[in-house]
Amino acid sequence: MADSTSGSYNEGDVAWVLASTCLVWIMIPGIGYIYSGMSPRGNALSALMLGFLAIPVVSIQWLLYGYSITFSSTGGSFIGNFKDALFLEDISEIIVHNSTSPTGNVNYVAIPKLAHAVFQLMFAAITPAMVFGSVSGRIRTIPALVFIFVWSTVVYDFIAYWCWSNNGWLGAWGVLDFAGGTPVHISSGAAALAYCIVVNTDPEVRRNLPNDTTDVILGTLFLWFGWFGFNGGSALGANLRAIMACIVTNISASAGGLTWMFLDYYLSVDLVDGPKLSAASFCSGALAGLVAITPGSGYVKPYAALIFGVLAGLICGMASRLDSHRSFRSLYFDNFQVFAVHGVGGFVGNILTGIFADKNIALLNGQVIDGGVINGNGIQLFKQLVSSLVGLSWLQSRAHVNNRNLASL
Amino acid sequence: MADSTSGSYNEGDVAWVLASTCLVWIMIPGIGYIYSGMSPRGNALSALMLGFLAIPVVSIQWLLYGYSITFSSTGGSFIGNFKDALFLEDISEIIVHNSTSPTGNVNYVAIPKLAHAVFQLMFAAITPAMVFGSVSGRIRTIPALVFIFVWSTVVYDFIAYWCWSNNGWLGAWGVLDFAGGTPVHISSGAAALAYCIVVNTDPEVRRNLPNDTTDVILGTLFLWFGWFGFNGGSALGANLRAIMACIVTNISASAGGLTWMFLDYYLSVDLVDGPKLSAASFCSGALAGLVAITPGSGYVKPYAALIFGVLAGLICGMASRLDSHRSFRSLYFDNFQVFAVHGVGGFVGNILTGIFADKNIALLNGQVIDGGVINGNGIQLFKQLVSSLVGLSWLQSRAHVNNRNLASL
Amino acid sequence: MADSTSGSYNEGDVAWVLASTCLVWIMIPGIGYIYSGMSPRGNALSALMLGFLAIPVVSIQWLLYGYSITFSSTGGSFIGNFKDALFLEDISEIIVHNSTSPTGNVNYVAIPKLAHAVFQLMFAAITPAMVFGSVSGRIRTIPALVFIFVWSTVVYDFIAYWCWSNNGWLGAWGVLDFAGGTPVHISSGAAALAYCIVVNTDPEVRRNLPNDTTDVILGTLFLWFGWFGFNGGSALGANLRAIMACIVTNISASAGGLTWMFLDYYLSVDLVDGPKLSAASFCSGALAGLVAITPGSGYVKPYAALIFGVLAGLICGMASRLDSHRSFRSLYFDNFQVFAVHGVGGFVGNILTGIFADKNIALLNGQVIDGGVINGNGIQLFKQLVSSLVGLSWLQSRAHVNNRNLASL
Repeated sequence: MADSTSGSYNEGDVAWVLASTCLVWIMIPGIGYIYSGMSPRGNALSALMLGFLAIPVVSIQWLLYGYSITFSSTGGSFIGNFKDALFLEDISEIIVHNSTSPTGNVNYVAIPKLAHAVFQLMFAAITPAMVFGSVSGRIRTIPALVFIFVWSTVVYDFIAYWCWSNNGWLGAWGVLDFAGGTPVHISSGAAALAYCIVVNTDPEVRRNLPNDTTDVILGTLFLWFGWFGFNGGSALGANLRAIMACIVTNISASAGGLTWMFLDYYLSVDLVDGPKLSAASFCSGALAGLVAITPGSGYVKPYAALIFGVLAGLICGMASRLDSHRSFRSLYFDNFQVFAVHGVGGFVGNILTGIFADKNIALLNGQVIDGGVINGNGIQLFKQLVSSLVGLSWLQSRAHVNNRNLASL
Repeated sequence: MADSTSGSYNEGDVAWVLASTCLVWIMIPGIGYIYSGMSPRGNALSALMLGFLAIPVVSIQWLLYGYSITFSSTGGSFIGNFKDALFLEDISEIIVHNSTSPTGNVNYVAIPKLAHAVFQLMFAAITPAMVFGSVSGRIRTIPALVFIFVWSTVVYDFIAYWCWSNNGWLGAWGVLDFAGGTPVHISSGAAALAYCIVVNTDPEVRRNLPNDTTDVILGTLFLWFGWFGFNGGSALGANLRAIMACIVTNISASAGGLTWMFLDYYLSVDLVDGPKLSAASFCSGALAGLVAITPGSGYVKPYAALIFGVLAGLICGMASRLDSHRSFRSLYFDNFQVFAVHGVGGFVGNILTGIFADKNIALLNGQVIDGGVINGNGIQLFKQLVSSLVGLSWLQSRAHVNNRNLASL
Repeated sequence: MADSTSGSYNEGDVAWVLASTCLVWIMIPGIGYIYSGMSPRGNALSALMLGFLAIPVVSIQWLLYGYSITFSSTGGSFIGNFKDALFLEDISEIIVHNSTSPTGNVNYVAIPKLAHAVFQLMFAAITPAMVFGSVSGRIRTIPALVFIFVWSTVVYDFIAYWCWSNNGWLGAWGVLDFAGGTPVHISSGAAALAYCIVVNTDPEVRRNLPNDTTDVILGTLFLWFGWFGFNGGSALGANLRAIMACIVTNISASAGGLTWMFLDYYLSVDLVDGPKLSAASFCSGALAGLVAITPGSGYVKPYAALIFGVLAGLICGMASRLDSHRSFRSLYFDNFQVFAVHGVGGFVGNILTGIFADKNIALLNGQVIDGGVINGNGIQLFKQLVSSLVGLSWLQSRAHVNNRNLASL
């Protein structure tokens, strides 16, 4: 890299991180479009709106104290100091060093902390937006806004701190999570599951075909488009690792989409009017592929992304059929399969990252890691598993408390 | 900043300005989507089209002479020289220095003049697109195209020259307008008001609910997304000030959207079916917040953006109810509240900039200003007021002449 | 340019190429939106889907061997070596030098080969997506997916190699094609023509008005927006030439859109309810303008772009009426005028590039060319003609074989 002066930053890196911020921003209403298109007509507008409203609520929480507790320079291993960067003050000149480096944390990337703050805001905002898909049409808007505010604080900010801050215990222990397998996807997927278990469900409610597949496609389009910023921007600069993250993101989404689409094709051969390729299945699969590659996007090679996508398409595609199964039907009903896509997809991604993480990819911008199973580092698989389970259980515990209170509002 | 060679430019700055150009470009059809969604079904397509058509008309005007009269290096204090840069020729190698610096104009930013030309084109094109919302469904397309061409020349180019060119009198006097409070928003808002006063209105015409809120949301999405480029790109580089502009833009939009949405919620408590949160209100408020922060986006801190957003949401939200009030009902009918959002929003933003402008934010990329009231510089408030009123009256005078002629076409 | 260390790259260039990659990506579903909006309602979803599905199919082909055969560093003058960069491996550290330089190939641009690979992938993916517009509603999805895979390999990769690789014979001979007049537009246009000749057509099928002009506009919006990356990104850096490419792209699209719109206006004066400006005509014209400027976008001045746009609007607009003409009606029916827009538009652009190519524009980032007719280099016109015809005939021959096989599937 041509980066030079310590204490300074490179404008090219800032340009890419700002562009990525915009890209991630547009994913948030993208979530709304997907849920809206999948909703019955009467709920379509409110589903769209909820996706959008996550932005203002989290933006204000982030301004007040969210960034401080998630990314303050000092703090314990559990949460930030609630003191630095309140109101995003006094962070203009500070240089942040990429904090996803688990071992041998050389200062391999330097961008202004301000840029890091606005980029990470978008991650904090998109995560709660994902949750509502599991209970769409079964919640009211104002409690949902309160939920977003509280959940961001007690769930997202904690998990993100553990994985990504300078002192977080999961990151320090060596868990690899490039762009949010645990904080974003397992967390939102698990919350969605908890939410739809808590919210009363009429057992007669069954899944319908999307009322507006065009909106599902529009949403998927915004998500895939934005995910280049989500994963590519997580390299915190316009460097080789960012490019590689864009490449693997696109491959995994492609493979996931095709896999789920053909899976549904073959599983529907007994339909009266014959099987057909479903655009909605393609979109779900692409999303699963995008979710799965997220934790690994800065660590794996292009061929591995093909494996991420195919497995995510298969496993998430099968998982999405679980709540129609007799054994689970009475337990939960996850409207838009949020747990199957984000929870299961995040888990698949975490595990595959433990296998396919490659030292040389991390070295593209100077991060030194031990790599995954393919580098002979079997323990990484265990760390990835722990990260997933820790995320899952923290979220379940917090989410339950949250949701019970909210359900009674 | 790592910027180095004088006489040269930094690729990172160019990358961000080009990305910002694209972002502002997509705002223009975004305006069309908002107006289209608010229109009765029969007018939806032509409203959408008018937003889009501002692009080709202004692009050609800008090529012919628009950029020359607005940004030629020499010229009086009133208008450019109509000689340099005609057909955008001979500007390849010239370096522009940010011209929004009112006092102590150090050369704090350097990008190729070509990049400045294409970025500023998008500002020139979006401004007339905003105007038509006040008379939607009441004008014909070909006269509207003529209006765009003429109005850009006699209104927009003049005001923009005064505020932003090297020699413009408002900028030279010390008015602070980072991304277009006066040239873009007061100007389009005032023109919209004049236009809808001139165009005959059936006093029986009343405002309807949006026929397609989804399109209003899509348009708002494009606007908010693009506004990162509008304000962030106005820093003319990938620097700390650009990042800060993105941060405050997002906060003000968030606060404005929530404020207007809850304002409408509380003012509609007497409705038969109870109050409800309206997505359209959120969109209007977000837009008001975006408008208000525009002049201040390179000058204020994040906490101040919260104040910009809340006040814009409140004041514009109240102003939008004026033309339904008995006293004004016979005077004008502004279909989509363009004056309330852009005119009043721009005014609120100009004034608040006079209060909250902070020396240290301008210093982020080296601009030296006296700051606003919070820096003990009370006179700034007066300058901002003058800028607003000058803009308003010039526009009213020009717009009246324009509109009368057009109305008779 | 501030570019410095040989063997290294500039982050600003990478930032712009990555942003451009995202911009081109979103064009692909944009094609789908245009075709979907033009389809009868029953076919709208599958048309939209086909645009989207080109992404995963070509992404996987590109990973397996597509990039290798199109851009491997060594290889004959006809096709790449099928050895380097398989699975996109081992290209992390290699620096690519812009290979569109026909004469005096100084190393005027340097970006990581990885960035080049992902940027060019989007070109490979969008090209087949364009083809299906000519046979929309008359093909089945799975054969179409096979078509994409095969056609990319035997048509696109070859033509792209000839024009753009280090050793391709067309580029080496001095053909100027900045962003894909021959490989992208003539190739897709000719394939579309061949495809719709081969596919059986009921002679009673006539063109309908678009069922959803809003979707046509949305698609056009994504295309125009993305085309800044398509042409601007082809400068492979954030340099003056990239900026100029953005400027001329916008002008040509503007002029093309207005021209075709007014052409249809004047040709429809005999309609019962009077002529009216059609949004769909504007969109077609903008697209024609974008297509035409593509080969010339890194070679011509802004005034010339006006000529590109006007002529593209006129010529493509007339060509689009051919298959309604008695003489051709029985020969072919091109549903959405793909040949008229892409084939004819690409041809117009190639020829005009031979006339208006300007040495000084290529010099903006150091490429030395002989220029076009305006630089006294008449032979360039011949070269451009040959490139167009070679492209056309290769494609016709390949496409015929392809299509006959597919039609029998």
